[in-house]
Amino acid sequence: MVTMAGPLTLQAIEPYLAQVNDLFARELTSDLDHVQKMSHHVERFRGKMLRPVLVFLSGLAAARRNDHPLGQTHITIATVVEMVHVATLVHDDVLDNAEIRRRGVTVNHLHGNEAAVLLGDLLISHAYHLCSSLESQIASRAIGRTTNIVCEGELTQNFNRGNWELTEKTYFDIIYRKTASLIETSCRLGAWASNADAATVEALGNYGRDVGMAFQIVDDILDIAGEQKTVGKTLGSDIEKGKLTLPMIHFLATAAPTHKQLLISLLESDASDRIDNARQLLIPSPSMRYARSRAQQLVDQAISAISDLPESEFQHILIDMARFVTARES
Amino acid sequence: MVTMAGPLTLQAIEPYLAQVNDLFARELTSDLDHVQKMSHHVERFRGKMLRPVLVFLSGLAAARRNDHPLGQTHITIATVVEMVHVATLVHDDVLDNAEIRRRGVTVNHLHGNEAAVLLGDLLISHAYHLCSSLESQIASRAIGRTTNIVCEGELTQNFNRGNWELTEKTYFDIIYRKTASLIETSCRLGAWASNADAATVEALGNYGRDVGMAFQIVDDILDIAGEQKTVGKTLGSDIEKGKLTLPMIHFLATAAPTHKQLLISLLESDASDRIDNARQLLIPSPSMRYARSRAQQLVDQAISAISDLPESEFQHILIDMARFVTARES
Repeated sequence: MVTMAGPLTLQAIEPYLAQVNDLFARELTSDLDHVQKMSHHVERFRGKMLRPVLVFLSGLAAARRNDHPLGQTHITIATVVEMVHVATLVHDDVLDNAEIRRRGVTVNHLHGNEAAVLLGDLLISHAYHLCSSLESQIASRAIGRTTNIVCEGELTQNFNRGNWELTEKTYFDIIYRKTASLIETSCRLGAWASNADAATVEALGNYGRDVGMAFQIVDDILDIAGEQKTVGKTLGSDIEKGKLTLPMIHFLATAAPTHKQLLISLLESDASDRIDNARQLLIPSPSMRYARSRAQQLVDQAISAISDLPESEFQHILIDMARFVTARES
Repeated sequence: MVTMAGPLTLQAIEPYLAQVNDLFARELTSDLDHVQKMSHHVERFRGKMLRPVLVFLSGLAAARRNDHPLGQTHITIATVVEMVHVATLVHDDVLDNAEIRRRGVTVNHLHGNEAAVLLGDLLISHAYHLCSSLESQIASRAIGRTTNIVCEGELTQNFNRGNWELTEKTYFDIIYRKTASLIETSCRLGAWASNADAATVEALGNYGRDVGMAFQIVDDILDIAGEQKTVGKTLGSDIEKGKLTLPMIHFLATAAPTHKQLLISLLESDASDRIDNARQLLIPSPSMRYARSRAQQLVDQAISAISDLPESEFQHILIDMARFVTARES
């Protein structure tokens, strides 16, 4: 289940990640058979466990003692942020009327839209329930505030589908809210649970925010320029859904008028080859390089945010992880 | 905005209900224009404020002092349960693929399924966030546990769509989970916030549970036998969605085999008059009376649950409210 692919050594936290998997399953246990079966569907949404990894690494990097610095609070928080993340993936899977009409009867993941909505709701409910098992309200407040922001990000993204005038500023606001805010909170709460001082919590939070932004930019780049086989999910989904991402925004702002018009007409087209054609137009353009450079800036900023922490093995892993965000191909 | 129609005098709590409306709007305030606009759509899901009413009446009936017995905790809890309730209504509004295909392009409430999912998520997130503003975790835990149960109820109902063998036992389990559990929690937390002793919290919780069950049975009866004009929403939706309710379950268990077969064939039909025909078959049957008698039993049980509370004006209102549940026609 675990694992950031790449050159990272995460052995130190593997036992904790195993505990997250246990707690995740235990929290979702139901006396109802069909609910239990439904919960198993969640497995297909599980992935790299990036957020739990960051809770633990932040907790370790922030800890002032080195013996057993992680406790049950870290495990609970790590499980909560993973549940919140999986819930957002499940709800992302709910299809809009238009898409259902376009894709026709073949679309029926799980048992239809209703079941996907309910499964996401079940996950988010258990996330809050689990979080409320902690002694203090601090984490519950942080999680509630964060999910408010995540929802606003998703609403803003949805609101701007088909808006070819979307600005870079709004794009950055969307990816902060929908992706980076939860990663920021993962790092902050990991540090908080290690009783870190305010400056350390802040530093790790800033690291998480910038890594999260870079992570989403790279995700958006891979959706255009990735190798289908390596990425492992359908590419071009942003193009299909009319969601402008950084390379497209830059392209529309800088390309020659005929190229700009061509991209818009592909985005608005119903033709089956429109996605491939849009990708072929974008891939060789300087806009891809531009997006990569913005991601790299954020990675540098993330690394710099934690450069003043006491040096430790875990600080080094966090730095490697940040670098890996821009290097990854899946 | 308020108000239980009917012979109830709720003047005593109107100022508190106004505060719920204020806090509801304040909690949903966003710096994003389009999110703010989206939140206004929520208004169309607001109704009788049954759950806030019960938080306040339970708080008043449980209070040992009579001067200013309701505080900010009651108002926060009342707003939280209302938000949770509205979130479930919004997500109920998300349509399944099959329904979308059947109803075609005319179905596009709000901005489609995605927006409805996100709006519901925003509400539930704000509900938990608001709840975490309370000093203690007690309410957050109760709300989290309750929403777990509500989701399980919705999943069970969804799982059993088109199951013509659904038993009364499972039906009662579904309506406890999806409807009565949140009403039970509203009453319990209302009493808890008045520092009531355990027996009083329990008594009011039992009252809420039984009133909630009766309320849902009557809702299900009205979906079959109500007057379109009085009820104010599309009737026959349970028949349309293949959700068996108490009158149908009783009918399938007791009617003559030919009638039973006729109901099933109407439930499975695609004909445009199938809903009207199913209603015409059920309305004159003894199964409607049976369902009413079960609701009445639950109302009696609810009243008996609070009969040992110290006599007060608010105990009387709670008793009247329980009676009104079976008397209502909308």
